[in-house]
Amino acid sequence: MGGQHGKFITFEGIEGSGKTTQLRLLADHLAGRGVDCARTKQPGGTVIGAEIRKILLNPSHHEMAPICEAMLYLADRAQHHAELILPALTGGRWVLCDRYHDSTRAYQGAARGVSGDELERMFALATGSFEPDLTILLDLDPAAGLARALRRNDEHGLAAAEGRFENERLAFHQAVRRSFLRLADRQQSRFLVVEASREPGAIAAEIRDAIEARWKDCLV
Amino acid sequence: MGGQHGKFITFEGIEGSGKTTQLRLLADHLAGRGVDCARTKQPGGTVIGAEIRKILLNPSHHEMAPICEAMLYLADRAQHHAELILPALTGGRWVLCDRYHDSTRAYQGAARGVSGDELERMFALATGSFEPDLTILLDLDPAAGLARALRRNDEHGLAAAEGRFENERLAFHQAVRRSFLRLADRQQSRFLVVEASREPGAIAAEIRDAIEARWKDCLV
Repeated sequence: MGGQHGKFITFEGIEGSGKTTQLRLLADHLAGRGVDCARTKQPGGTVIGAEIRKILLNPSHHEMAPICEAMLYLADRAQHHAELILPALTGGRWVLCDRYHDSTRAYQGAARGVSGDELERMFALATGSFEPDLTILLDLDPAAGLARALRRNDEHGLAAAEGRFENERLAFHQAVRRSFLRLADRQQSRFLVVEASREPGAIAAEIRDAIEARWKDCLV
Repeated sequence: MGGQHGKFITFEGIEGSGKTTQLRLLADHLAGRGVDCARTKQPGGTVIGAEIRKILLNPSHHEMAPICEAMLYLADRAQHHAELILPALTGGRWVLCDRYHDSTRAYQGAARGVSGDELERMFALATGSFEPDLTILLDLDPAAGLARALRRNDEHGLAAAEGRFENERLAFHQAVRRSFLRLADRQQSRFLVVEASREPGAIAAEIRDAIEARWKDCLV
């Protein structure tokens, strides 16, 4: 990459939309093209973030206040930005991140009702409003996504890992999906919206082609 | 207390200034006067807060970004306000709290350099800028306070409990002390500044007398 900054790509979507799989497939593809990629996630991409993640996703924390929840996500984001994302990008690495601030806009903002202005203000404080170069939105009907997420949890014993959000009602996830689509509509140049009910291989090919077209000068 | 709200009293001061001891002595005195008191602390007064506290005070977390730290304190404060402080006060209980937002103003604001305006904005979001009825500032020379705090840690094996702040340089604690004194000077009606190098009994008597005088109508 010479002295160039790396690209910052985030994956967004409801639970069960296939973010983790698609992130892995894209990272593998980019590695094959000689791109040095950091794979990470929010919350939890740092040692401190992993501890914040445990608090956020613990399904026994029914009592968590929406503002507390939002501030924990932003605390994780601030740490992740300072410790990992910015140093990686300035060092020329690409960063692929599973969820970022669009998730906070959708979950804590649209679905939980925390003020959007306040979330943007905290995002500015946490990261200087550092937006991704590209956000891949895996769009899926929440009923299908939740069925997938619950099946995955049963298979991998992940019930405690992402339970607090998966236990929310379907209407909650529908509000999240609508919010993601609104965000994508408002910032079309940053978002790639991918229909995520298809086979993983077909989705991966669409993402790959879009990235090859977008950054053909970086991918020699 | 009839249908009246309880009083919200916070204890502030540098490490080793005697906050925990004085809070206990005041709570015991008030209990003897028939006042139903909740004793609590920040961070850590709720189940979620106790988990946030572990992250904040872990001395191995050298890498914590100042903004991450500030947001974790505010997340704890939001949860504590919603879950414990407000319900207790509206139920007529008094709340005695070991550290509150003045600590964030002093430690994260003055000493770590996080913007005071942003801290106030997050405080508004977390609690509606809910200020104590009375803040007792135990003022002490940092050299004396740190010696006391380290002695206590040696005796009680608390090295890991409050280590991340006690390991800071003396100049850090001097900045914290000056900030507390400035806050007290600006809001004289809210603060009681107590000289904390004396015997605990003498300090407790001064606090007791001030509270009896301030709320003689509530303490029959």
